[in-house]
Amino acid sequence: MKKKRVGLRVAYNGTNYHGWQIQENGITVEAVLNQALSALCGEEIHVIGASRTDAGVHALGNVAVFDTTSRIPAEKFSYALNQRLPDDIKVQASFPTARDFHPRKCYSEKTYRYQILNSSFPLPQLQAFTYFVHVPLVETRMDTAARALLGEHDFRSFCSVQTQAVDFVREILSCAVTREGALVTLSITGTGFLYNMVRIIAGTLVEVGMGKRKPEEMEEILEARDRAMAGPTAPPQGLTLVKIEYPQGMGGDQADEIEIGCL
Amino acid sequence: MKKKRVGLRVAYNGTNYHGWQIQENGITVEAVLNQALSALCGEEIHVIGASRTDAGVHALGNVAVFDTTSRIPAEKFSYALNQRLPDDIKVQASFPTARDFHPRKCYSEKTYRYQILNSSFPLPQLQAFTYFVHVPLVETRMDTAARALLGEHDFRSFCSVQTQAVDFVREILSCAVTREGALVTLSITGTGFLYNMVRIIAGTLVEVGMGKRKPEEMEEILEARDRAMAGPTAPPQGLTLVKIEYPQGMGGDQADEIEIGCL
Repeated sequence: MKKKRVGLRVAYNGTNYHGWQIQENGITVEAVLNQALSALCGEEIHVIGASRTDAGVHALGNVAVFDTTSRIPAEKFSYALNQRLPDDIKVQASFPTARDFHPRKCYSEKTYRYQILNSSFPLPQLQAFTYFVHVPLVETRMDTAARALLGEHDFRSFCSVQTQAVDFVREILSCAVTREGALVTLSITGTGFLYNMVRIIAGTLVEVGMGKRKPEEMEEILEARDRAMAGPTAPPQGLTLVKIEYPQGMGGDQADEIEIGCL
Repeated sequence: MKKKRVGLRVAYNGTNYHGWQIQENGITVEAVLNQALSALCGEEIHVIGASRTDAGVHALGNVAVFDTTSRIPAEKFSYALNQRLPDDIKVQASFPTARDFHPRKCYSEKTYRYQILNSSFPLPQLQAFTYFVHVPLVETRMDTAARALLGEHDFRSFCSVQTQAVDFVREILSCAVTREGALVTLSITGTGFLYNMVRIIAGTLVEVGMGKRKPEEMEEILEARDRAMAGPTAPPQGLTLVKIEYPQGMGGDQADEIEIGCL
């Protein structure tokens, strides 16, 4: 039977998951999706995810694809699948993609946000989605520091030493820190991110906001190419993968497939 | 020993509680506060709450007072108390009040919001704090209907039949429905609310938004003074008690106590 490739935009509350990627010790978002899809399609399904988010990290718009011989139209998978998914994982859309569309290998622009609750006391409503910092943060200092990361840089200083990466050059398209009341948000868009990169950037910016570091230090940290120069890795619950855009399309219709292709 | 009265502004995620008020069958916010305060003060403490929110309803700013002989300054209770409270209940402020300040008997203006997620699929991040409605809602119709409730009315039609109230006249100071993306929010401020009143208003407005009812029906519903005329009681998780204001003060300093008093 002819297989088709179907794309999913997936939102999840990462609190109760050991991250995206399947592993032996703990339930993951990928494993839950595979299980629900396999039951739905009556065949073994393995999704390919765009971003392997860490344990405790959330997503509003991670992207995944899978191949199936199912007769369910691509657009209808979202409805059928959500019936089988738990409350903390819900597909926001399903759509056809080119047979060779690969969500990690195709050019994409990923947007993350890191949220900090900066007030005297934690707020129960935001506990699962923010890093609580009671020391007052000067968000304008953080914003100045954040902007030093714009453009193409070697981000080795902002990468976990446990990485398997060999190329540490990444391009940041936008990077800013804003405040709304007690909520301080880092918004960052780039064409790729290293392991723990956004959380290490957030942890470093918090030190800038507290006055422990100067905004100008960001350039020195980048130049050092040494993880020890940056700040601590901020905790996972503040991080959300907001969206992943594929400016060259995902080959959803025949025209796309022929004209654009995708690696 | 001389007793003092201390006020608390309390935020909670109501998901795991059987509401505010102490009851036999289930843990409540009031019971948890009493327990933490009694342990902290070394004497039996009973808080008096401003609003007895229902099971599953949230608060950003409920108000409670208690009397104690403790030497802990009123302003410092928040810090000490939060150490003993669970993550889903956190005091946002503590302060001295007049000895005769009563959070339910003194004139106050309460603001609630009711949040509806109006999209094709539920969003895990908002699940605990919104009512999910997939039928498209026309928020401008809802807003028109909401405004019919402004002013002083007999709200018997919008009150649970299980109430013990005898006077059903309440005054609504502001009432509006707005949309931000998929999030439709009813914001309502009044000097008092009947049992389930905001949730019945929300349930009725959802029917208006769906086109099942006309905005003009709100006046007829009010006039009928009959619970059966209004829509269903919307589920609790969409409701949050945002704030309670006491325009005449809470008698926090001596001047207040003398000049204003409070019942």
